[in-house]
Amino acid sequence: MKIEAHHIQGHNARMMERHREDFGFLQHQLGRRGLDAAELAGQVAGLQVAIPSWALGAGGTRFGRFSIGGEPGSLEQKIEDVGLLHALTGSAGAISLHIPWDIPADAAAVKAQASALGLRFDAVNSNTFQDQRGQALSYKFGSLCHADSAVREQAVEHNLEVIRIGQALGSKSITVWLADGASFPGQHNMRRALQRTLDSLQHIYSQLPGDWKMYIEYKPCEPSFYSMVIPDWGTSCLLASECGDRAYSLVDLGHHLPNTNIEQAVATLMMRGKLGGFHFNDSKYGDDDLTVGCIKPYQLFLIFNELVYGMNNNTAGNPPPAWMIDASHNVKDPLEDLIQSLEAVRLAYAQALLVDAAALEEAQENNDPARAQEILQDAFRTDLRPLLGEARLLSGAALNPLGLYRSLGVRNRLIGERGRATVATGL
Amino acid sequence: MKIEAHHIQGHNARMMERHREDFGFLQHQLGRRGLDAAELAGQVAGLQVAIPSWALGAGGTRFGRFSIGGEPGSLEQKIEDVGLLHALTGSAGAISLHIPWDIPADAAAVKAQASALGLRFDAVNSNTFQDQRGQALSYKFGSLCHADSAVREQAVEHNLEVIRIGQALGSKSITVWLADGASFPGQHNMRRALQRTLDSLQHIYSQLPGDWKMYIEYKPCEPSFYSMVIPDWGTSCLLASECGDRAYSLVDLGHHLPNTNIEQAVATLMMRGKLGGFHFNDSKYGDDDLTVGCIKPYQLFLIFNELVYGMNNNTAGNPPPAWMIDASHNVKDPLEDLIQSLEAVRLAYAQALLVDAAALEEAQENNDPARAQEILQDAFRTDLRPLLGEARLLSGAALNPLGLYRSLGVRNRLIGERGRATVATGL
Amino acid sequence: MKIEAHHIQGHNARMMERHREDFGFLQHQLGRRGLDAAELAGQVAGLQVAIPSWALGAGGTRFGRFSIGGEPGSLEQKIEDVGLLHALTGSAGAISLHIPWDIPADAAAVKAQASALGLRFDAVNSNTFQDQRGQALSYKFGSLCHADSAVREQAVEHNLEVIRIGQALGSKSITVWLADGASFPGQHNMRRALQRTLDSLQHIYSQLPGDWKMYIEYKPCEPSFYSMVIPDWGTSCLLASECGDRAYSLVDLGHHLPNTNIEQAVATLMMRGKLGGFHFNDSKYGDDDLTVGCIKPYQLFLIFNELVYGMNNNTAGNPPPAWMIDASHNVKDPLEDLIQSLEAVRLAYAQALLVDAAALEEAQENNDPARAQEILQDAFRTDLRPLLGEARLLSGAALNPLGLYRSLGVRNRLIGERGRATVATGL
Amino acid sequence: MKIEAHHIQGHNARMMERHREDFGFLQHQLGRRGLDAAELAGQVAGLQVAIPSWALGAGGTRFGRFSIGGEPGSLEQKIEDVGLLHALTGSAGAISLHIPWDIPADAAAVKAQASALGLRFDAVNSNTFQDQRGQALSYKFGSLCHADSAVREQAVEHNLEVIRIGQALGSKSITVWLADGASFPGQHNMRRALQRTLDSLQHIYSQLPGDWKMYIEYKPCEPSFYSMVIPDWGTSCLLASECGDRAYSLVDLGHHLPNTNIEQAVATLMMRGKLGGFHFNDSKYGDDDLTVGCIKPYQLFLIFNELVYGMNNNTAGNPPPAWMIDASHNVKDPLEDLIQSLEAVRLAYAQALLVDAAALEEAQENNDPARAQEILQDAFRTDLRPLLGEARLLSGAALNPLGLYRSLGVRNRLIGERGRATVATGL
Repeated sequence: MKIEAHHIQGHNARMMERHREDFGFLQHQLGRRGLDAAELAGQVAGLQVAIPSWALGAGGTRFGRFSIGGEPGSLEQKIEDVGLLHALTGSAGAISLHIPWDIPADAAAVKAQASALGLRFDAVNSNTFQDQRGQALSYKFGSLCHADSAVREQAVEHNLEVIRIGQALGSKSITVWLADGASFPGQHNMRRALQRTLDSLQHIYSQLPGDWKMYIEYKPCEPSFYSMVIPDWGTSCLLASECGDRAYSLVDLGHHLPNTNIEQAVATLMMRGKLGGFHFNDSKYGDDDLTVGCIKPYQLFLIFNELVYGMNNNTAGNPPPAWMIDASHNVKDPLEDLIQSLEAVRLAYAQALLVDAAALEEAQENNDPARAQEILQDAFRTDLRPLLGEARLLSGAALNPLGLYRSLGVRNRLIGERGRATVATGL
Repeated sequence: MKIEAHHIQGHNARMMERHREDFGFLQHQLGRRGLDAAELAGQVAGLQVAIPSWALGAGGTRFGRFSIGGEPGSLEQKIEDVGLLHALTGSAGAISLHIPWDIPADAAAVKAQASALGLRFDAVNSNTFQDQRGQALSYKFGSLCHADSAVREQAVEHNLEVIRIGQALGSKSITVWLADGASFPGQHNMRRALQRTLDSLQHIYSQLPGDWKMYIEYKPCEPSFYSMVIPDWGTSCLLASECGDRAYSLVDLGHHLPNTNIEQAVATLMMRGKLGGFHFNDSKYGDDDLTVGCIKPYQLFLIFNELVYGMNNNTAGNPPPAWMIDASHNVKDPLEDLIQSLEAVRLAYAQALLVDAAALEEAQENNDPARAQEILQDAFRTDLRPLLGEARLLSGAALNPLGLYRSLGVRNRLIGERGRATVATGL
Repeated sequence: MKIEAHHIQGHNARMMERHREDFGFLQHQLGRRGLDAAELAGQVAGLQVAIPSWALGAGGTRFGRFSIGGEPGSLEQKIEDVGLLHALTGSAGAISLHIPWDIPADAAAVKAQASALGLRFDAVNSNTFQDQRGQALSYKFGSLCHADSAVREQAVEHNLEVIRIGQALGSKSITVWLADGASFPGQHNMRRALQRTLDSLQHIYSQLPGDWKMYIEYKPCEPSFYSMVIPDWGTSCLLASECGDRAYSLVDLGHHLPNTNIEQAVATLMMRGKLGGFHFNDSKYGDDDLTVGCIKPYQLFLIFNELVYGMNNNTAGNPPPAWMIDASHNVKDPLEDLIQSLEAVRLAYAQALLVDAAALEEAQENNDPARAQEILQDAFRTDLRPLLGEARLLSGAALNPLGLYRSLGVRNRLIGERGRATVATGL
Repeated sequence: MKIEAHHIQGHNARMMERHREDFGFLQHQLGRRGLDAAELAGQVAGLQVAIPSWALGAGGTRFGRFSIGGEPGSLEQKIEDVGLLHALTGSAGAISLHIPWDIPADAAAVKAQASALGLRFDAVNSNTFQDQRGQALSYKFGSLCHADSAVREQAVEHNLEVIRIGQALGSKSITVWLADGASFPGQHNMRRALQRTLDSLQHIYSQLPGDWKMYIEYKPCEPSFYSMVIPDWGTSCLLASECGDRAYSLVDLGHHLPNTNIEQAVATLMMRGKLGGFHFNDSKYGDDDLTVGCIKPYQLFLIFNELVYGMNNNTAGNPPPAWMIDASHNVKDPLEDLIQSLEAVRLAYAQALLVDAAALEEAQENNDPARAQEILQDAFRTDLRPLLGEARLLSGAALNPLGLYRSLGVRNRLIGERGRATVATGL
């Protein structure tokens, strides 16, 4: 199905009076601080977040999977779903594909379909953590780090193919996430495994088109349970540095040990010019892949605070980071979950834009942590939802995307169109 | 020093116009949801939080301590400081003493001083984790759990003395926090240590005045680094149950293993009628004793959500929990830190009051987690600071307590009065 | 395939001389401490550990699964595999079934097959964390805790069926592990969910045969990522207490928050007479389900130290705990992994038997942690592998089970018999 | 007091027969694997571990401190204590000083005293985490990272003074551990804080004598509870790299987030030639500073396995790491604790020497994790205490250092000499 302009317009018309009231007061409130709410709304409207193609169906855990119905069964249907999200929210203007799950049969047609929906193709993702039917060699014991050079070559070649597919669609970057690692002490010679991974990445990098970037993801555990070959930002940054200028670290919010100060890693990476992008999600225990902002919204704000600061103080020439969601959906309708995630990302961004940077710097230089806290909390505690509404209005999207999604009965229509038993590729 | 009524009035007068504007809009906003902001402000104004006497001076870590100057050097000065906090915020109407740091020379005079400042004495705290000068037997190897019955008896007697001191001041409860535990495997027979602790607690309980409550705190580590005798809510609840009806668990937010779902423990304790009270603070790593709400404000809201639900659905006859702050202050002025903590506690309470309980129950019964999340986040994202301001106005307190504290130069005045070198008792 | 007596005898004959040498020296060494190695070997030989039927095939993670080949495709083949383990190790004298994966078509025949291999049926396990084909109602939103009473009834009825199946096979206990929980704040009313779970468990318990036990497992997270209905030993113990005398807690070593002192929970449960049994495995991060003892062998020893103490000081009438392995196998041959796990369990048990209980108690009563550590480490550092060999000899098992398994080419034979593509039921 | 040769000889004579028996069997056992126990004993005897001067008195927590009596009250007494440890164990041939706690009045005399006891001076440690009496500017808000350049300069100058003191004593390295960090979000501009720290370190490095090394320690939390300026190995390695060739990372086993794979960080640092040294201790929760090997002895072995591998495969020219203990002692006699720590370090080293490197590499290259585990566990499970005894014999030290320490009544003699009330400087 497709969200039509009249759906949005009717919905917005019904909510406009209240929105005007709320936004008007916010404008007044921010005006008192010398801030221009309309300008901020414009900035927020510019934030586009890529939707991962694998998050459009019901996610699973190792204990099971419960289908939602109406899941997209093809790449075209996935693009359709992202188009729907973009129409509702005005913030999902890109899609991130996963190969081999999303190999386009007709790249030009797929590109045209996306373009018509206002979507571009963000980073493409390779998959060497599963074996595909007909694959010559298994990744059971790793891919880019594998002891056997033939497996490493197969994995490198897969990444090169992913790049070729991405080129056909207009992508400009590849994200490499590796499940490579050891589940038992002694399984790996950890130094050799890291060296081989570096060699393989350098091989891929050497074939990277001149206008492409490579993002190297890190993760401390799962699916390997003793050591992952790229466990932390330090290792990822080291690999990226040794690959070259267009290789960067990618931060997935769920890929950290308990209590990690993620915003600090973000600050350090930006200081080195090595922050490539983000996989947004939230978690309480591990890589839980929950809706963005549903557990630790203040941490998300603090991360955006570093991002906004880093972009405004870009001393190391860090390129604009790639924003992607990476969440999996066990009990919610995945599209509803993505709408909530998109809202949370923009809210944190808007809050960070509100931070009085000059006052904060003054408090910091004066060793005044109580004042610094007031400044941050003032931004975080301000209710900026009207600003997000205004940003959506600017893009022709819905004032209440989730409300409209439900009132239109989108899920039921998708089930009607696609059936109850479709299963989207993904975890 | 003392905050005078004219200080408050002058301050409030200057801020009143803006407050009226903000509160007026909030009233309108909440009115649209069928909520009466003025009534909510009254409820919030009723929430009084006890200030721990040991949080009024600079806190330390094992690596050092940096004095702040003007610290209260006597019980009377501590009460003065709490009076000051209460005058500014209208929310600090109680003080929680720590024995032997705060033994009153003249209980009646101290009681009168507190009363004149609008303060009552909340739970008294015993201390068997340090040796005091002249103490006959050492607590190096434990107190209520000690292998030597003479040490246990000394510790029991200390607790009984704490109760007598509390009685003289009008307290109605004692909080028992034990550092007892083992730092090395094998140091303790863990079962014997627990049994002895139970015996000692039962002995104390048997002497508890009829209108008193006993709160049993738990903590998984520090200062014992292998096993604490009361490591978790389960053990604390078990001990409280075996002591009797007026023994309860006390939850300190910093006393949990990484990733613990604290609000769930709160819910379970209330369901059993065994939640005695709280020590509020915040933390990122362990028992960091940071300002309430400065790291995980959403978790604090979720905890209050359980508390509000629990008090409205009090099927097990849980008494109203005791609210206390337990934070230590390394780099902030402790009074500023407490003002921020008090604000954070009330903010979370107000947010919880805003939760649409009927809608939430409906979402829960319909297995609609996306909707449930919307309901919770709606309450949390609403900017309720004007409500807190209104609540303070109702109590004759300041619209901006921290601002007034700073503009009056309170810390400098205290330094002037008390000197720079005073050291308050505490950690 | 089947391990024949002559396989064992030939293997043992080849290794006997070295074993005699090693065991002889150990006997001498232990003799100097007044210990009788032969008697200890007999005690160790008595420790039988149940093999879970779901651990015989390759385990998976949510990211993928790599088959091993020759996996058991039927209940009969699973029993055959456990028989093989038992023949090799003499320590796997029981099997723990998982319903509906292991419903016997002909219970009497299955029982006879097991009996011929020296196996009995340990606890049966229910499964309400997945939907089975043809199931009327879904467990997507929980089972025993579900908001809808019809789902709860279905889940209760499933548990009752599991009991009936177990009865037919001679089992005497059921293990209930629930995936029930919430992945998002607000999804559950945590108190109602716990109350419903209690009601359901009481219903099951009321139908429990008089000579049966019920084991209630706990877990803090996964597959629910915000709150599990039974997150910790405290909740499990509370539920067991409210069900009745024959309901117990079951401890899975991987089901704890980071840094939990598991041996302390074990000690407390035994002190209350509420320790039902164990799921052995090991982990570094979460519920990693690695080979027993491969990450934290000293913790395993400390747990066994509490178990041995608890069984020798059984003041609360705790029944002998049920020993089960619960590990999943991603990169090892599952049978090899189980052989290693069985060895690790017995090694920890033997080490715990070596602890000088009287000296330890003396050190504890004298507050001598350095001495207590020496006593524990002395037991742990002694090389007791010859004792385990001797215990296997006593049972007619192999001196080097893993060596014999490999030299017989068991996996290749199983692949030959069953094919490469069989997939055992499991995670 | 001083341990005399006749003390050792008498003790060893009494234990010699049993030792010969045990070592003889071990020789035989290892001989069967083609290993020469005598040669291994020689290697182990070569491992010398530096004792930190601050670990010789009773350690404290923020909750209190319990004196042990007989604590060394001067630098000379500290050296005397280390001499005593070295005489007993033959493994404590160095001392690591902490400035300003250990400024020698007469460097030559102190050097002579140490030399006479067979001790050399290992890394000197600077202290900018506390304010010293008479210090011009406070480190309350940091030292090398401080916003105020005057504080940074003072801290740099302190480090330079520490180097000068170390030079006078023959040290060849300085360890920089910083408490610098923020306890509250917003307190620091994390990028500026890191940049300033780098600038300060580079300043110190520029003055480093040509034959000196600089070790940069890292720690994720405590005493700062939101962000430490150098939280992890990645940041430390980055700083060391930007300082120069003779700057290295230093790994303290307690300075990691929960579940960190420390041995992997060690492997990566050695691969980069950037592992400077170790602070050995053990912990269950945080920086618990417990006796080495008392909680996770297998992890310690895995770390030594990487160290032995790294030294044998030193492709990046990593210098021999500096071995130091950094433990604090709450409930044990600190000298007994150090004896136990020294034993644990050497035991792990000996176990790592036993690993069959060729077989392990073969297992790794063949993707045989079960076999790799067997190889590691075989080394770990072998009882190598007789080897350690033999190594001590080679150095003229005691077969049972702790036994001799106790039988000589060393602590009581120290109390007799120094009194009960002395307090050693330290935490």
